[in-house]
Amino acid sequence: MEPEITASRAIVRYTKGKPQHVRDLIVSEYALTIKVNGSELVTMVCTPDHIEDLVVGYLLSEGLIRRYSDIKRMRIDWKQGFAYVESDRVNPLFSDLKQKRYVTSCCGGSREGFVFAQDALLTKQLNKQTVHLSPDDCMAFMNQLQESADTFKQTGGVHNTALCNTQGMLINRMDIGRHNALDKLYGYCVRHQLPLTGTFLVFSGRISSEILLKAAKIGCEVLLSKSAPTERAIELAEQLGITTVGFIRNQSFNVYTCPERIG
Amino acid sequence: MEPEITASRAIVRYTKGKPQHVRDLIVSEYALTIKVNGSELVTMVCTPDHIEDLVVGYLLSEGLIRRYSDIKRMRIDWKQGFAYVESDRVNPLFSDLKQKRYVTSCCGGSREGFVFAQDALLTKQLNKQTVHLSPDDCMAFMNQLQESADTFKQTGGVHNTALCNTQGMLINRMDIGRHNALDKLYGYCVRHQLPLTGTFLVFSGRISSEILLKAAKIGCEVLLSKSAPTERAIELAEQLGITTVGFIRNQSFNVYTCPERIG
Repeated sequence: MEPEITASRAIVRYTKGKPQHVRDLIVSEYALTIKVNGSELVTMVCTPDHIEDLVVGYLLSEGLIRRYSDIKRMRIDWKQGFAYVESDRVNPLFSDLKQKRYVTSCCGGSREGFVFAQDALLTKQLNKQTVHLSPDDCMAFMNQLQESADTFKQTGGVHNTALCNTQGMLINRMDIGRHNALDKLYGYCVRHQLPLTGTFLVFSGRISSEILLKAAKIGCEVLLSKSAPTERAIELAEQLGITTVGFIRNQSFNVYTCPERIG
Repeated sequence: MEPEITASRAIVRYTKGKPQHVRDLIVSEYALTIKVNGSELVTMVCTPDHIEDLVVGYLLSEGLIRRYSDIKRMRIDWKQGFAYVESDRVNPLFSDLKQKRYVTSCCGGSREGFVFAQDALLTKQLNKQTVHLSPDDCMAFMNQLQESADTFKQTGGVHNTALCNTQGMLINRMDIGRHNALDKLYGYCVRHQLPLTGTFLVFSGRISSEILLKAAKIGCEVLLSKSAPTERAIELAEQLGITTVGFIRNQSFNVYTCPERIG
């Protein structure tokens, strides 16, 4: 059985200096350990929904497998917090699972893996131009993401992302980890073979290089964010041909790369 | 030589639908690999300032060393992005550095390490009551953090934290990673033997269990945040005797645990 995503708790809320005892919804944390072919790969802290998609998206975006069909079997043990994955097509670079570590903006992995992940992608420039957004589109889709984000409105504790086309939102996901929200979306796309022509990503969090690389892996040519990009993310976006739009707030936003898809 | 923290770039800014070519400041990303006794421990992506403090804070908060004096030598190679640490007092639990992985809210490590980190701390309840804050204090210190956060105001891309006492801010740090900002502060406190009586933490990011545990390691009895806590962070704060205050915005905030230090 899936654990609850939020919990209700008694808190003290101060408003204009006056305390009041109220109940509030708090977002939960779930520790999930992914085991691949019996070896422990990683323990991640996440919001416990769409876990199968998260596992698939994570394995793909880390490059451990190359396509969904590389997974032979997957089983989630909700109570113990384990995802058991079997694959006989693990990327040879990861063949020694015990040696492999990972890079995130919080924390780490091997430097070789880090540099590899970036270089490998630089060869795959996205040459498509299937999306064109007006300035109004950019603001409207960010508003729509924020309005649809129920758990965020209730708890303030999660990041949100949505895959959209100009007709509307196709799928949206949330997680306490920025990366996890995108991996859940990625996993869903791959498992359901969603066509990505004409789609773009809307994201509540900052655009670091890792987030940009995830968008590239998913295959999206436009990434809209409420927040700021980093310099390295901008450089990668330029090389990969991805349009990055940030700081979408109050009738204003910034286009950092490939501005020809906006206007 | 230390790399730049921000870079200036040409962007297109849309305001009310009208594009304008302007220059903007973008926050940089720096990949730092920590090697301990010759073995690669971790590669982290960070903002390149106060790197020595970051390394010390990281090693302490991950439990790899127990005190600052456990480090015999440390050298930063800025150009290559390496921190070389020598220690003959590495925590025996980490003796096989190649086997050890880490947990963050983005990404991972070993489950044993994760559970260990939490359990180990549960034995160390913080019994001091050296801080009492009025509702006005809570709001004033959050405002002060935001006003002091120059890089954030310029780039929007970093998290900020400050160690304060009721007289004012003692030290503030920022980083593109929430965890790194706290580790920089932790490292500074330890290297300069800052007395922590009467001090509290102000933090721009969400309070996940890892952030709460870092505050506990630093030895702070109050953590003020602009954002939301997770359920696990609240449970840990309760057990550790730490006051958590969140959602400090517009004349209002929530006290989640140990409310006796506020009022």
